[in-house]
Amino acid sequence: MRTLKNSTEIKKTDHAEPEVSRLKQEVERLSALLEISDYLASTLDLDELLLRVMEVTRKQLNAERCTVFLIDFERDELWSKIAMGVQEEIRFSLDKGIAGHVARTGEILNIKDAYADPRFNPEVDKKTGYRTRNLLTMPMRNKKNEIIGVFQVLNKKEGSFTAEDIELLKAISSIAATAIENASLYDELNQSFVSFVETLSITLDARDYITSGHSRRVTLYSVQVARLMRLPKKEIELIRYAALLHDIGKLGIPEIVLFKNKKLTEEEYNIIKRHAVLSKSILSKIRFQRHLKEIPQIAAAHHEKIDGSGYPQGLRGDEIPRGGKILALCDVFDALTSRRQYKDRMDIVEVMDILERETGRSFEPFVVYHFKNITLNVLIEILEFGHKEDFKAQDLELLRNYTLKDLIRIRKQGAENDEEFQVAEIFMYYYQRKYRGE
Amino acid sequence: MRTLKNSTEIKKTDHAEPEVSRLKQEVERLSALLEISDYLASTLDLDELLLRVMEVTRKQLNAERCTVFLIDFERDELWSKIAMGVQEEIRFSLDKGIAGHVARTGEILNIKDAYADPRFNPEVDKKTGYRTRNLLTMPMRNKKNEIIGVFQVLNKKEGSFTAEDIELLKAISSIAATAIENASLYDELNQSFVSFVETLSITLDARDYITSGHSRRVTLYSVQVARLMRLPKKEIELIRYAALLHDIGKLGIPEIVLFKNKKLTEEEYNIIKRHAVLSKSILSKIRFQRHLKEIPQIAAAHHEKIDGSGYPQGLRGDEIPRGGKILALCDVFDALTSRRQYKDRMDIVEVMDILERETGRSFEPFVVYHFKNITLNVLIEILEFGHKEDFKAQDLELLRNYTLKDLIRIRKQGAENDEEFQVAEIFMYYYQRKYRGE
Repeated sequence: MRTLKNSTEIKKTDHAEPEVSRLKQEVERLSALLEISDYLASTLDLDELLLRVMEVTRKQLNAERCTVFLIDFERDELWSKIAMGVQEEIRFSLDKGIAGHVARTGEILNIKDAYADPRFNPEVDKKTGYRTRNLLTMPMRNKKNEIIGVFQVLNKKEGSFTAEDIELLKAISSIAATAIENASLYDELNQSFVSFVETLSITLDARDYITSGHSRRVTLYSVQVARLMRLPKKEIELIRYAALLHDIGKLGIPEIVLFKNKKLTEEEYNIIKRHAVLSKSILSKIRFQRHLKEIPQIAAAHHEKIDGSGYPQGLRGDEIPRGGKILALCDVFDALTSRRQYKDRMDIVEVMDILERETGRSFEPFVVYHFKNITLNVLIEILEFGHKEDFKAQDLELLRNYTLKDLIRIRKQGAENDEEFQVAEIFMYYYQRKYRGE
Repeated sequence: MRTLKNSTEIKKTDHAEPEVSRLKQEVERLSALLEISDYLASTLDLDELLLRVMEVTRKQLNAERCTVFLIDFERDELWSKIAMGVQEEIRFSLDKGIAGHVARTGEILNIKDAYADPRFNPEVDKKTGYRTRNLLTMPMRNKKNEIIGVFQVLNKKEGSFTAEDIELLKAISSIAATAIENASLYDELNQSFVSFVETLSITLDARDYITSGHSRRVTLYSVQVARLMRLPKKEIELIRYAALLHDIGKLGIPEIVLFKNKKLTEEEYNIIKRHAVLSKSILSKIRFQRHLKEIPQIAAAHHEKIDGSGYPQGLRGDEIPRGGKILALCDVFDALTSRRQYKDRMDIVEVMDILERETGRSFEPFVVYHFKNITLNVLIEILEFGHKEDFKAQDLELLRNYTLKDLIRIRKQGAENDEEFQVAEIFMYYYQRKYRGE
């Protein structure tokens, strides 16, 4: 991250020639604003942008802290995703506190002694151990002059905030508002795309009770494996979309074959196998963004096997895209661990024995290796997706320290201590439990 | 659109005090750049942005014309959507002309006498009747220093382009590049969303040959009516998405009922009617952007009738959203004019008689009024969507001057002249023609 000039530098002046010194100061101020403008404009990632706005403001006003709150108009709340120092989302009602007051009234509040002011709420200081001396709170307005958020700058390093600080913050605020509106528009559009794909994926799975939740779980497993493999953020996003959409080709298979309860004829099986190719041809029609261009290839490869015996293309080894190898394993794992009508789940040891046997034939060893490193809390939450409300927090806490690999060892070779015994018991309790109606 | 200071103003200086005058000039320059930065950052619409960049550059450099070319990396071409003066997309290979040279080499070319320079291609001047005297051509680079486009500024109003102009253009170019990259990212994401929705819509329709192309045609009719009603751009976009997705609820209806060839029982008909409610519930799960929030309500209303006898809610009159009223008419029009196996199309006069009879009962009169104003070239292109390559250009040219309303009059009361006779003949030829295999 580039460093930006701070206000001390900007305000250094030469008192010999007042006109020259005033102009020099103005040149410095404008240069700094231009640099800020460029810096803020060069990201559309809302989280990153808010971080930049807070960093720039703090430096320019020579203050200890800065928080930017945005208004959530649907919920009448103010929120800040990344408060500097405290790394969590803060949310509160628009009626509350100084920030709420400023957001509602549009007033600029420059409070020189926080604890002497009745509007100041010392609760946050109490919680964080921070001591607020003075604070400048200013509304952020967009081009239409609507208030979209609030700046709160805490503890001027020397003295308290001046009229000059207020002018500077106004200028920064105007630049920031435009950048934030752009990033918010991008974020909204992206969320609408994600939620569209997720909704479609869930709707397609739900057509048949047997596949209900399948794509969602395959997606969760695949993303987990991709993270354990430490793949770049953009490749993880690519794999997530490919997983959500890998079975979209089933839209082209008649339901009478697709949902048949009895054993399939060879002809019927061949019809069903066409879904992989159909996924590719449907997805190829979509103009995905650059980093998502490989979605059709990955989705189409979810039944390929590394020894070349899979379909539709019979690809071998590294002819199969990495995402496709991950999907292939997660797809089979989900099929083997699904609850079927009138049947219990296959024992997890048996499931893993099958997968081990196919490692190096169907599955890429590297992918299996990472899959077994999924921690048990994550694993059971995916297996039992949709029943999360039943989990005891303390159980998940205990499972967090063990992986699938650990579980298989415990189950095969016995527990080495009480905790291991307990971990296996807890996991198996959730894994095997039954629900009403099943 | 705001007006921006032009370079003549900026360069006015006071020669009495060289230091003060230099600083004043710098303040002016920086203020102008800051204003430009704000102006360019405040739109994510790529077309609008390019227009702004060209306008600003032309003014700042005190030139007659400015064109910004962007590189299309997939096709190795330069393109400009809105060249000032000529309102069309220009495209040419990266190998060509001065702009191509600059895009490839990154050189800045300041040509003081165009016709004396062998690199200058006078063809464009010949076509447009414009006379290029001098031109400044400069690459546009993004933050990674990659060339993403080219500025071409023509005919400095006094003299030719100076070193100062080059410096100013560099500064503008850097600001513009960031804004263009943001707008391009937004545009890409939006295109991927649109193409996703379109692909899904087509795929769903294609499950059954009877509905193949239905949603696409309903969308085209609806957008046409919305345009004739002069609805705002954002509402037209809303209606377009609602039309593409109005039948998505059919995903929740078993194919055995949905695609039944024989007469439906009452029970089966009731199952099929559920698709409207299902469309709403599926679409309600998607977090659409603000201006698209009404999609679920509009999509769900495509079988409502203004007398309250429709379904699923039995809404009356203006309880039905405007988009829903448009969809309802276009949906029925498409059903009545569809080619069914072994059957010819219903005559268009008969179709319109049915619609007229239902106007004020099923359909909103205002919507029917605008529907009848669709011109015949547009109408036949939608009716025959997928067979566009068969149209004769001269036929479409003739149909362009008549509306559906005209056609019905001609067919009912007879042609008033030869052209009217011909128009009806041509329309009916395309309307009634058969294809191989039908």
